[in-house]
Amino acid sequence: MTLYDLELSGNCYKIRLFAALAGIKLEREPVDLPGGAHKRSPFIDLNPWGQVPVLTDGDLVLRDSQAILVYLARQHGGHQWWPDAAAHQGEIMQWLSTAANEIHNGPNIARLVDKFGYPRDKARALEVSDQILPLIDQHLSEHDWLALGRPTIADCAMFPYIAVGWEGGVSLEPYPAIRAWIDRIKALPGYLAMPGID
Amino acid sequence: MTLYDLELSGNCYKIRLFAALAGIKLEREPVDLPGGAHKRSPFIDLNPWGQVPVLTDGDLVLRDSQAILVYLARQHGGHQWWPDAAAHQGEIMQWLSTAANEIHNGPNIARLVDKFGYPRDKARALEVSDQILPLIDQHLSEHDWLALGRPTIADCAMFPYIAVGWEGGVSLEPYPAIRAWIDRIKALPGYLAMPGID
Repeated sequence: MTLYDLELSGNCYKIRLFAALAGIKLEREPVDLPGGAHKRSPFIDLNPWGQVPVLTDGDLVLRDSQAILVYLARQHGGHQWWPDAAAHQGEIMQWLSTAANEIHNGPNIARLVDKFGYPRDKARALEVSDQILPLIDQHLSEHDWLALGRPTIADCAMFPYIAVGWEGGVSLEPYPAIRAWIDRIKALPGYLAMPGID
Repeated sequence: MTLYDLELSGNCYKIRLFAALAGIKLEREPVDLPGGAHKRSPFIDLNPWGQVPVLTDGDLVLRDSQAILVYLARQHGGHQWWPDAAAHQGEIMQWLSTAANEIHNGPNIARLVDKFGYPRDKARALEVSDQILPLIDQHLSEHDWLALGRPTIADCAMFPYIAVGWEGGVSLEPYPAIRAWIDRIKALPGYLAMPGID
């Protein structure tokens, strides 16, 4: 299995983190995004969307970090990370959507503006962050993990951009339950950091 | 099972459409969003996020349209809509993320601005639409359905805001393969429309 990867991408880090926690071996193939390699052959033939991460496993090619998490967990990770029951999949899915929508539009965009100079609406990204983080903090004040009372791919999908949000000016100071959850994730066996997470 | 519902919401319509196609019976409980009912008890106790749709099935309470699709398909819909194999779940998940991210940030936001007066960046929503729709059109020029060569919850998640995007000024005129896919969905047994889709 090969992960087409960018060290500074939180979306790629979701996959590296999950693979490390679940003991899944991945080859890493760095993609030179600053050099534009994601918009050229051969990468663009693999993923016409021109985005990392991409996972290949034999003939299978998958884009999108949430899709890769679901595949890896189901194929190689075990039911503790992505269970079989409909209600459990639904519970986790809520957070995969939140990662793709609010966490992307909030902390991720704020960081893209501040750290990489993307021309996006920073004020709106902070507004989204200010709406979503209190709801997550409230949830985590009553639950150790986002779903099912144990670490799942929901935590792997949500963790990266929340944890590096400070690089976009999104402070976790008002959110003690989120900070405690971050510490619990960092204490998991096999945990792996990314740049921007101490 | 009860769907807390808003007739004009494409996210709620995803669920109504899927239930109709899969022959799943839902009670509909309208939520008075213009009157602010989604921000008050009793709805806010059910979903602290203050958003529709919400599905209840016995003790289970789920927010988020993609999560509800996964749950309904797995519990009540059958494997043709959300299959068991890891690679197949991954293939569909790619589109559930696209629905939560690009389709939300593109056609959905454009429509919220034009139809409901939301204070959002319409130009950015059109930019996102202009980036994503050609990629979807290209994919559909080679595939009748978004995933697995057959209708799945991927189509139900992607269809609503693409089909009503014209209410936000997002034209499908340049995208013949998307228009043909829309016609295929409309021809499915059990198909149900929403306001804004003829």
